[in-house]
Amino acid sequence: MSHSRSSFKVLRPIQTRWLDNDQYGHINNVMYYAFFDTAVNGWLMDATGVDTRALPAIGLVAETSCRFMKALSFPDQLFAGLRVQKLGNSSVIYDIALFREQDEEPAAIAKFVHVYVDSTTRRSVPVPDVIRSALAALQ
Amino acid sequence: MSHSRSSFKVLRPIQTRWLDNDQYGHINNVMYYAFFDTAVNGWLMDATGVDTRALPAIGLVAETSCRFMKALSFPDQLFAGLRVQKLGNSSVIYDIALFREQDEEPAAIAKFVHVYVDSTTRRSVPVPDVIRSALAALQ
Amino acid sequence: MSHSRSSFKVLRPIQTRWLDNDQYGHINNVMYYAFFDTAVNGWLMDATGVDTRALPAIGLVAETSCRFMKALSFPDQLFAGLRVQKLGNSSVIYDIALFREQDEEPAAIAKFVHVYVDSTTRRSVPVPDVIRSALAALQ
Amino acid sequence: MSHSRSSFKVLRPIQTRWLDNDQYGHINNVMYYAFFDTAVNGWLMDATGVDTRALPAIGLVAETSCRFMKALSFPDQLFAGLRVQKLGNSSVIYDIALFREQDEEPAAIAKFVHVYVDSTTRRSVPVPDVIRSALAALQ
Repeated sequence: MSHSRSSFKVLRPIQTRWLDNDQYGHINNVMYYAFFDTAVNGWLMDATGVDTRALPAIGLVAETSCRFMKALSFPDQLFAGLRVQKLGNSSVIYDIALFREQDEEPAAIAKFVHVYVDSTTRRSVPVPDVIRSALAALQ
Repeated sequence: MSHSRSSFKVLRPIQTRWLDNDQYGHINNVMYYAFFDTAVNGWLMDATGVDTRALPAIGLVAETSCRFMKALSFPDQLFAGLRVQKLGNSSVIYDIALFREQDEEPAAIAKFVHVYVDSTTRRSVPVPDVIRSALAALQ
Repeated sequence: MSHSRSSFKVLRPIQTRWLDNDQYGHINNVMYYAFFDTAVNGWLMDATGVDTRALPAIGLVAETSCRFMKALSFPDQLFAGLRVQKLGNSSVIYDIALFREQDEEPAAIAKFVHVYVDSTTRRSVPVPDVIRSALAALQ
Repeated sequence: MSHSRSSFKVLRPIQTRWLDNDQYGHINNVMYYAFFDTAVNGWLMDATGVDTRALPAIGLVAETSCRFMKALSFPDQLFAGLRVQKLGNSSVIYDIALFREQDEEPAAIAKFVHVYVDSTTRRSVPVPDVIRSALAALQ
């Protein structure tokens, strides 16, 4: 499947920080995952219009992965392309690509898996309707 | 001295991240300093047009402080107001205020001190001319 | 007041991380505040024997400051010396020094202010008795 | 392949921080990768006896992944089990498991891939001999 910029309908801007750069002068691998976390949760709040953290069911991260293809560095402006790879009963698998400035080809490609759980018992529950509806825009 | 939004000539946008929030549901005190670091260094790069990290003299942080007045929380959009409180021979003291969205009153007020050192020997040297010139806009 | 290692009765070990180092090859100024946060809250949990986050009153950070005197770098083992500078009705001011390995002189000196608030209303309340009692060991 | 604690010859202690916890009261998924980065690089420095960052060839992270099985929370003491899954010409694939306190079963299982590059040109080069020799202990 293509991960070029134009294959993503949703692109979220990501501002880099001085501290993101590590000793080798580029953005540390760890911080990419902070970008993904922020892109997914920020988009969900914008798209649903609700504070998803206050819903009876919350999304916990069950699995993530990332392939790092090109170095990035503060103060680059980044964009995270988001789409849903698979929407299950209680889980959502996101397919994410990270772009530097206006680049067409991604600097990193990632997988991000949310599993929805009851916010109190932390037991698996169905993806909330308000989120399921919003996700249609990412499919 | 006033720290209202309109008293700052330079305002830098700061994007919050999911991970900035701590267990109490607001942005952790530590992360404010990442905002200041990013605002100052990002502004210096923009204003000078050079990668300040590659200059023969680099700015190391000698002292910082912050008073936290109002809670902030992802996904708030923030703005850091910057001005120079004192420009010395080898040091710069910044006076910073952090604003939530379009607020006129600051959520936090901070002091941020850069001391310039030779990038190799790490001995104190004068503030580079290119930076001194740019700082005129913050005074 | 002396900030030498032997002037502190309580020293908390702090493990550095690869990501703490920034582009200049030393620990970024922001991360020092993560060390202080961890040292204070970790000590409070150990000394009181309770999860302080679950108490009806929680400590929010109202002010912090730090002077950076010597560079530190991963994988240095650090130690945070803690003592109470002032115990008020609803606030605690900590005086903190950060030591590299077995150094007698500090690499950084900091101030860290907790204000206790009701965990629900976030209004100022007295320092909880269980914490007040524990703090006697830091005075 | 088993990921129980006793199947790992090398276990690296990981100290958690207050800031590692996110709004849901457990360690944020992003921070696990900081643990892996620290465990691998810290072990390499200890095992080789050299500052690996100063070698002519440095290890850049090409790919990482993690499955999150059990929630962790500050102030948990963690341990990262390390072993080499595959040692190639210019790359090393680590198989990592993260254990809470003295748990026998892992809280997370991860893959961490280093590709060695010339520290100046950033072109792929063979794994340095000093690192290749040390890695024998992880196989």
